[in-house]
Amino acid sequence: VESKHTIPRTSLAQVLYDFTAEPGNNELSVKEGETITITNQSIGGGWVEAQNSRGEVGLVPEDYIEVTAAPTPSLGNVAASDLSFFDAYAPASTPATNGNDPWSAWNADSSGGSTNNWASNPEGTQTGKSAPDPWPPVSHGHPQAYQGPGAEDDEWDDEWDDMKSTGGYAESEAGESGALQRGGSHATSMKISLNKFPGFSKSGPELYLLCKQLVKGKDRLPIYMGEVGPVWSYPETQLDCVVADPKKGSKMYGLKSYIEYQVTPSTTNRPVNHRYKHFDWLYERLLEKFGSAIPIPSLPDKQVTGRFEEEFIKMRMERLQGWMTRMCRHPVISSSEVFQLFVTYKDEKDWKMGKRKAEKDETVGVMVFSTMEPEAPDLDLIEVEQKCEQFSRFTKSMDDGVKEILTVGHEHWKRCTGPLPKEYQRIGKAFQNLSSVFTSSGYQGESALTDAMTAAGKTYEEIAQLVAEQPRKDLHHVMETNNEYKGLLGCFPDTIGVHKAAIDKVKEGDKLVAASKITQQDKVTMAKRASTMSYALQAEMNHFHSNRIYDYNRVMQLYLEEQVKFYETIAEKLRQAHSQFTTM
Amino acid sequence: VESKHTIPRTSLAQVLYDFTAEPGNNELSVKEGETITITNQSIGGGWVEAQNSRGEVGLVPEDYIEVTAAPTPSLGNVAASDLSFFDAYAPASTPATNGNDPWSAWNADSSGGSTNNWASNPEGTQTGKSAPDPWPPVSHGHPQAYQGPGAEDDEWDDEWDDMKSTGGYAESEAGESGALQRGGSHATSMKISLNKFPGFSKSGPELYLLCKQLVKGKDRLPIYMGEVGPVWSYPETQLDCVVADPKKGSKMYGLKSYIEYQVTPSTTNRPVNHRYKHFDWLYERLLEKFGSAIPIPSLPDKQVTGRFEEEFIKMRMERLQGWMTRMCRHPVISSSEVFQLFVTYKDEKDWKMGKRKAEKDETVGVMVFSTMEPEAPDLDLIEVEQKCEQFSRFTKSMDDGVKEILTVGHEHWKRCTGPLPKEYQRIGKAFQNLSSVFTSSGYQGESALTDAMTAAGKTYEEIAQLVAEQPRKDLHHVMETNNEYKGLLGCFPDTIGVHKAAIDKVKEGDKLVAASKITQQDKVTMAKRASTMSYALQAEMNHFHSNRIYDYNRVMQLYLEEQVKFYETIAEKLRQAHSQFTTM
Repeated sequence: VESKHTIPRTSLAQVLYDFTAEPGNNELSVKEGETITITNQSIGGGWVEAQNSRGEVGLVPEDYIEVTAAPTPSLGNVAASDLSFFDAYAPASTPATNGNDPWSAWNADSSGGSTNNWASNPEGTQTGKSAPDPWPPVSHGHPQAYQGPGAEDDEWDDEWDDMKSTGGYAESEAGESGALQRGGSHATSMKISLNKFPGFSKSGPELYLLCKQLVKGKDRLPIYMGEVGPVWSYPETQLDCVVADPKKGSKMYGLKSYIEYQVTPSTTNRPVNHRYKHFDWLYERLLEKFGSAIPIPSLPDKQVTGRFEEEFIKMRMERLQGWMTRMCRHPVISSSEVFQLFVTYKDEKDWKMGKRKAEKDETVGVMVFSTMEPEAPDLDLIEVEQKCEQFSRFTKSMDDGVKEILTVGHEHWKRCTGPLPKEYQRIGKAFQNLSSVFTSSGYQGESALTDAMTAAGKTYEEIAQLVAEQPRKDLHHVMETNNEYKGLLGCFPDTIGVHKAAIDKVKEGDKLVAASKITQQDKVTMAKRASTMSYALQAEMNHFHSNRIYDYNRVMQLYLEEQVKFYETIAEKLRQAHSQFTTM
Repeated sequence: VESKHTIPRTSLAQVLYDFTAEPGNNELSVKEGETITITNQSIGGGWVEAQNSRGEVGLVPEDYIEVTAAPTPSLGNVAASDLSFFDAYAPASTPATNGNDPWSAWNADSSGGSTNNWASNPEGTQTGKSAPDPWPPVSHGHPQAYQGPGAEDDEWDDEWDDMKSTGGYAESEAGESGALQRGGSHATSMKISLNKFPGFSKSGPELYLLCKQLVKGKDRLPIYMGEVGPVWSYPETQLDCVVADPKKGSKMYGLKSYIEYQVTPSTTNRPVNHRYKHFDWLYERLLEKFGSAIPIPSLPDKQVTGRFEEEFIKMRMERLQGWMTRMCRHPVISSSEVFQLFVTYKDEKDWKMGKRKAEKDETVGVMVFSTMEPEAPDLDLIEVEQKCEQFSRFTKSMDDGVKEILTVGHEHWKRCTGPLPKEYQRIGKAFQNLSSVFTSSGYQGESALTDAMTAAGKTYEEIAQLVAEQPRKDLHHVMETNNEYKGLLGCFPDTIGVHKAAIDKVKEGDKLVAASKITQQDKVTMAKRASTMSYALQAEMNHFHSNRIYDYNRVMQLYLEEQVKFYETIAEKLRQAHSQFTTM
């Protein structure tokens, strides 16, 4: 069906798995293969409202469905992943559609087989091919990754954030000319674009291991030995950024509009404006440049419908803030030229120049290791391998732990905002109803009891409200933090994969020398460089651990603080209700 | 299948309504007509554990099933109602199997048609026929009501509480020789045995309205005008009784055993022993003697299996205590000869004599009004009718209100003892699991965080426990009180029915005089006696109201007190958990 400029707020979806509604919970039972109509995507917490062919309407878990007909009939490229903004808290226990778990290579065979996620890709093309998403909805292959300088004339044009300003929900993403669509969740692995290095996809990290000349100069990234082991060089004052003040901008005489965020770095305290597409550009640059050594978490997911709704904008801003804060905290990233450009560019010309320069940077992919200089003796291969195994085990375990919290939290969120407050409301109503029956008794001196009972009933209605609002105050932060970590942890299989491939290559050293493929000197160089890679990995893990301890300490405190307040508020309300009854 | 002396703890049941299990809730989905095996009746809260033909085991609401094969194959008489002890909190919203709601006559047509629940019974036999039970499981017709003096030789024999003391769960109720089985719930209306007055069932209250000679002497029940209107004569000190110390007795050289309760009245402070069957005998006497004027609530239901289980005995005792307390509080009942006999008999001989006398009492049924002497001028018929309508409306409304609380409370009970603690437990486990992953990181200085996270996780496991135990501390009392009131209110349609019938008879007065069926004097007498009945009803309603205010004030206070403690305890636990995190 062709619609013109108005997009209905509904879209069709295919049911991927059977889902049985919990009674009294506003849910809708659906069967695998069934086609349903999404009637409201703004439910949150991983749910959408949908209608089945019998006209029944109810909530369905977003990860049980796949959008088949997007709101825009003319422009393709609207994948199911566009719905996934609200899928952030989707239960991790959802069955995967295939075995492409990015963790699986490191899990079953921890003795270290030769497989990893992408180095062994038989097609030899990595460009723009997203790693398989372990969770449904299945991530669709996205179009070409960022297309480089040629696309720059589109810079201030908009393909992602725009809409016809007439008609409320007009055209969606054009996507084709520069969008890099991410998979369905934050856990999506990094997509490292390495097409500039033709040999890479076949040979893995040997581009770095065997390259003749290492980068020198200001790009140099020292690795020191700290108390906890290898550490990055940390700046004296940590950069911080505030993402704020989302504004609707427009161009082409109001025909197109978009949301612009204000980004203010603590260094200059001078705000710069950026749209989502600029964040996305930055993400791509960071992924390309540092992705082999440093997990670069995905941006908050894109979203087609409801992009201008306040709640969505608020949530996206909060997540962009979280992403920026994490990037700022990373000494290597925050001090990089491209990141500095993003937060401190002076004007459009400055931005365009810097942008062009960043896109021409050749020290990307595994070559980033060539800038790293550990100030410590080389490690032997056994130690390198042990460290790698240890990090692999730890990140896999933590991924499981984080996903368990997300699953449990998701369930709890659902209960706290659904059946539980409804029940307290019904308790409140029942007390009030009985109280008003009592009032009708015609018996004298009843009002002391009925006033108190009515007050008690109202108290339970207030408690219902408190219960329903509480998750946004506390559980929300636990979910966001764990969601961020799910995203970060999802990057490790790739990072560790590069490392594993390097180890394998070093192990092949003698064979390669024997076959005259490399010289004896090359072999020594490879071992030395694998040691450098290991220092980098250890520095990164230490960075990860210290941030992790800080983040979980903070979020647990915040959660418990709010929980204490919550239970105290209820106790106080009930104490007041109790005091209204007369002692007999 | 014939079993000999050992009763399996399972019995078969037929499913009356479809029930869909709530996922993750240990429930079992069942279909109408399906046969299931009850594997555990001691679940409580209106649930039984059952197994279907596919061997799946789970919880099923007790009021969705009907026991078809009782544990005892040899002795019949085991109705579904025997399961209903645990059905006390069954939701009132369960669809009724027929329209025989005891309230319906007074509901749809409040202008007062000539129908009432039993006076218009076309069969003309009331004896032992229980009023239709409005809720499933459908109450089976019970055997003959108490059979009078002829049965007295069985006095110290036992048909209800006994079992072969060998074999743990031996024979069940014999029932045939004296048991009066009540319907499935406390709401069962009174069963007024009036077979001693042959004309009664056809003519309703005219036996009293037209009788020649009224009872005089010590049976006299004065009705005074108090501040709130007509009131019974209240004693200076209120009788109180403690039901305690349930003991397993046995007889016939240990072949039969039973439970005996100690009943200690505040007047003599001398305990007497009674078995359930004696309470039942008392109930029958009170119902027969006062049932037309005073609602006599049913005893706690009988139970076949699990009768000797501690939990059951405790619960029955608590309910017998509640019943006795209510009877003690009633000035007419507590001062009656039969009640005094029950609480103060000196020895077996005294008991047998008193028993025989009580059974020979002829001032029963509507004739109880003949003992009532209002110390106030006669009321005119309009006022009598208005009062009656008012009480009818009020008791009906309160019945609705009470049932709403029971339904909501039942739901809440289920949630608090099922999914909610399970969820807190899972939250606790998730925190602890992540904490132990963190412990494995190999990173230094992690223990402050992991210890605190583990403690927080354990705190949520403790909260799970608190949540699951709380209903027994607070909701239980709300449920018990409302359950008692549901029972009491279920008696009012009969009480009000007698009243309505009297009003109708007085209205017919002129016609009856014209047809020479009664004299003019008879007509005047009838009006006067209808006024007496109205005074009695008003006195009873005032008694009801004052007790109701006391009971609800007390139970609401108790509930809120415990709720405050509950939330404070949780807040304190969380405060402690919070304090274990280090401030950074």
